[in-house]
Amino acid sequence: MKIVCIGAGRLAHHLMPALQRSGCMVVQLYNRSEPPLTELAHKLHVESHTTKLEEIYPDADLYFLTIADDVVGKIASKLIKIQNEDAIIVHCSGTLPLDIIPIHHRGVFYPLQTFSEDHETDWTQTPIIITSDDAYSLSKLYTIALRISGSVYTMSDEQKAYLHLAAVFANNFTNHMLSVAEKICTTHGVHFEILKPLIESTIKKALGLGPEKSQTGPAVRGDDQTIEKHLRMLQEDHDLGEIYRLITERIRRK
Amino acid sequence: MKIVCIGAGRLAHHLMPALQRSGCMVVQLYNRSEPPLTELAHKLHVESHTTKLEEIYPDADLYFLTIADDVVGKIASKLIKIQNEDAIIVHCSGTLPLDIIPIHHRGVFYPLQTFSEDHETDWTQTPIIITSDDAYSLSKLYTIALRISGSVYTMSDEQKAYLHLAAVFANNFTNHMLSVAEKICTTHGVHFEILKPLIESTIKKALGLGPEKSQTGPAVRGDDQTIEKHLRMLQEDHDLGEIYRLITERIRRK
Repeated sequence: MKIVCIGAGRLAHHLMPALQRSGCMVVQLYNRSEPPLTELAHKLHVESHTTKLEEIYPDADLYFLTIADDVVGKIASKLIKIQNEDAIIVHCSGTLPLDIIPIHHRGVFYPLQTFSEDHETDWTQTPIIITSDDAYSLSKLYTIALRISGSVYTMSDEQKAYLHLAAVFANNFTNHMLSVAEKICTTHGVHFEILKPLIESTIKKALGLGPEKSQTGPAVRGDDQTIEKHLRMLQEDHDLGEIYRLITERIRRK
Repeated sequence: MKIVCIGAGRLAHHLMPALQRSGCMVVQLYNRSEPPLTELAHKLHVESHTTKLEEIYPDADLYFLTIADDVVGKIASKLIKIQNEDAIIVHCSGTLPLDIIPIHHRGVFYPLQTFSEDHETDWTQTPIIITSDDAYSLSKLYTIALRISGSVYTMSDEQKAYLHLAAVFANNFTNHMLSVAEKICTTHGVHFEILKPLIESTIKKALGLGPEKSQTGPAVRGDDQTIEKHLRMLQEDHDLGEIYRLITERIRRK
């Protein structure tokens, strides 16, 4: 499998080494700007790298788009004029539909993980979601995904979009709840560190029992006095009070 | 230290064994109903247990109120007529103020943790918050807390109340975000399990880097297209859409 990687951002930095280790050959890298490109080329020992779309090799087996969502459509449309017709074009976006790539051999290869600049990714623990309407592409992508991850799933465009929405709640919004907790602590001279064991137990319980069963707190107990006290404490931050009120109502209704 | 434990709920089931192991003597248990009382008495090998307040021993050193918030004031007022004047009365609530106990030797002993019915608590990893306006009580409680936990903090009533509010965000609301994610997944035929590695990384990063720095997602990227798509996907659940909108706005403002 000869791969051309379009984009040299964080995802490419994590995914391409994993693909190499699984036996794929990364033959060329493209990025619109030079600096991250040379760094990634060095890391992967790939000689051919370019900032010009027209220099992209036409004869690879797989073109991986690891670029920002808002340029995937545009780059895919240019790419189909370059590559040979047996090649597969793949994007890695959780939100974009499959048909943003306007050719037959196409797919989505969406790793559901948060990638750090300074931490290696444990690919064996990273679920990979595959979407395709083409049996040939699906089979190729599934095989590659299974070589780097222990959990590979095929999904429809719609399911993937809902999974991505769920991930926003589970990752981004959960993180924001922790930001709010940190802010409340530091504003009142309390170390956020104190909450760490509680946060760790919360997640352990939620993943063990399921979050529905592990819900605790004033809302689930129907403890109106505490809820009213908290709303008074939040009255200087209108939106945060509203978030508190809405989440509390949802928990109570269950 | 002779301790009388008022209440035989989940907290008593976790805290009293820890106090016994640290060298305290639990001499009597009180609970308004019999069943949990006999179970706890058996677990602790404590012979004296009662459902009648007037039978509570007057000569213990420490009376631990492990009862529901809404009865702490009432029981404390009755207790001060029973116990000897050198004894300390302590409640364990994150929300109630210290002065709900109307005597001189008083304190709050608030373990910041979520207790499970079926899991032992790791007390070495459980922060204990001590509040008191009486030097004698403070010193006694601090000493006891240090024997069972590695992290003991003294705080004012106000700080403790804000810590509790922060804990609602960090524990209860974080858990609800995971409930929402689970619901979105199951409604669309996607296994919630797929999100587990992402959730674990999210928490690891948030606790490592701090949640402010580890924030990712469409809101922080200013990815309006994705945000609008998500709001459309949520339009059948008005409150959830509103929660999405409010949290997204807060993340963007930063």
